[in-house]
Amino acid sequence: MAYEELMIEGRNAVIEAFRSGKTIDKVYILDGCQDGPMVTIRREAKKHETIIKYVDKERLDQMSQTGKHQGVIASAAAYSYAEVGDILERAREKNEEPFIFILDGIEDPHNLGAIIRTANQAGAHGVIIPKNRAVGLTATVARTSAGALNYTPVAKVTNIAKTIEELKKEGLWFVCASMDGTRMYDLNLTGAIGLVIGNEGEGVSRLVKEKCDMTAAIPMKGDIDSLNASVAAGVLAYEIVRQRG
Amino acid sequence: MAYEELMIEGRNAVIEAFRSGKTIDKVYILDGCQDGPMVTIRREAKKHETIIKYVDKERLDQMSQTGKHQGVIASAAAYSYAEVGDILERAREKNEEPFIFILDGIEDPHNLGAIIRTANQAGAHGVIIPKNRAVGLTATVARTSAGALNYTPVAKVTNIAKTIEELKKEGLWFVCASMDGTRMYDLNLTGAIGLVIGNEGEGVSRLVKEKCDMTAAIPMKGDIDSLNASVAAGVLAYEIVRQRG
Repeated sequence: MAYEELMIEGRNAVIEAFRSGKTIDKVYILDGCQDGPMVTIRREAKKHETIIKYVDKERLDQMSQTGKHQGVIASAAAYSYAEVGDILERAREKNEEPFIFILDGIEDPHNLGAIIRTANQAGAHGVIIPKNRAVGLTATVARTSAGALNYTPVAKVTNIAKTIEELKKEGLWFVCASMDGTRMYDLNLTGAIGLVIGNEGEGVSRLVKEKCDMTAAIPMKGDIDSLNASVAAGVLAYEIVRQRG
Repeated sequence: MAYEELMIEGRNAVIEAFRSGKTIDKVYILDGCQDGPMVTIRREAKKHETIIKYVDKERLDQMSQTGKHQGVIASAAAYSYAEVGDILERAREKNEEPFIFILDGIEDPHNLGAIIRTANQAGAHGVIIPKNRAVGLTATVARTSAGALNYTPVAKVTNIAKTIEELKKEGLWFVCASMDGTRMYDLNLTGAIGLVIGNEGEGVSRLVKEKCDMTAAIPMKGDIDSLNASVAAGVLAYEIVRQRG
């Protein structure tokens, strides 16, 4: 886990990074920008003794990796990956049954960011992603997660199927999203659970699907094939929230 | 409603456009590309007597508006807007209680596309968007909708609040998404319903919120402010699906 520089772009993402206690090395602010969120960012920066640099739009555009800096970019240590054990520990600390998202090959950073955001709001204890054939924690993921990446641990594993086997020993049940499954309303999704979401195009891979205890289908009343992966993850996660509640 | 040329980019989007019966004028295919989806596209093109042009990657990159053509671009008539009356008519034809999405200022084309895709799959009869301060039906929206734009009518109105008033006369109830609302599970979301989703940053505008009969909150167990707009729309839409089911 090397210490790398990470650019955090956009107002909400920068504010959330400060509030989460993340160490921000420097913050680059568009010169002359005086609105509410910018005042908040300047206040947070002063409170945390972060260096503020006022720069022009051209400079920000050059630095931006997402093209959507909204007048502010912060540089910080790169988001670091957690271990699967940290995620279980988090559930234990909260005295809750583990609720983990397992992403079997999400490729689009916007989807990954939105899913981490959903995992945070649905009360999941962490997200597991594979080392290969998937997007990692890039600046776009951080921005799209709207700050959730500061709170929700993300672990990277070599073999999703093997990780599922190990987590089963910890008492977790696994449900994967697939159109040929049982209507999600008809499944029992309470207890210690892992929600497995597949790749945008291919869905959940065969090997991973075979490891799952249940296959959940979102009712599809439309004319097309599927939902957007982050929307499907949200719909399933909130069915779990409803059943747990 | 002018007849304009529209570029449809990406394999799924092009296949769905063919299957929906849309008139495709021409399809540009990356020369030498022979995989499964491309075979399907060529077969559909022949069936519909669409002109096929084999081009090199440079040409496709030049034509592409989304930067994600995946080796195929089709040119067709632009997606046209429906009228609100068409959406109600569609519910009547299907002998269903109207279920309409009202988007109060969605700005991100990826969100708009994903929400139209969700509206289609959740069995909604159409989507209403405002004329101003919102994204319209661009090529990115078409691509992100994964073909749903061919089936789900989208109407554009000048004044969302006024449209809600008119639809109330047709017997619709309106629920808007807002964090200060009632837990969605505790609301009665059956019957003829309009689901109002607000802007990504600002939420539902005050005027529109005042016109709504109910305010629904998605339970938020996390550390950040909100969900991605298209995820929130999906979670609420499927709570409506569950209650209607």
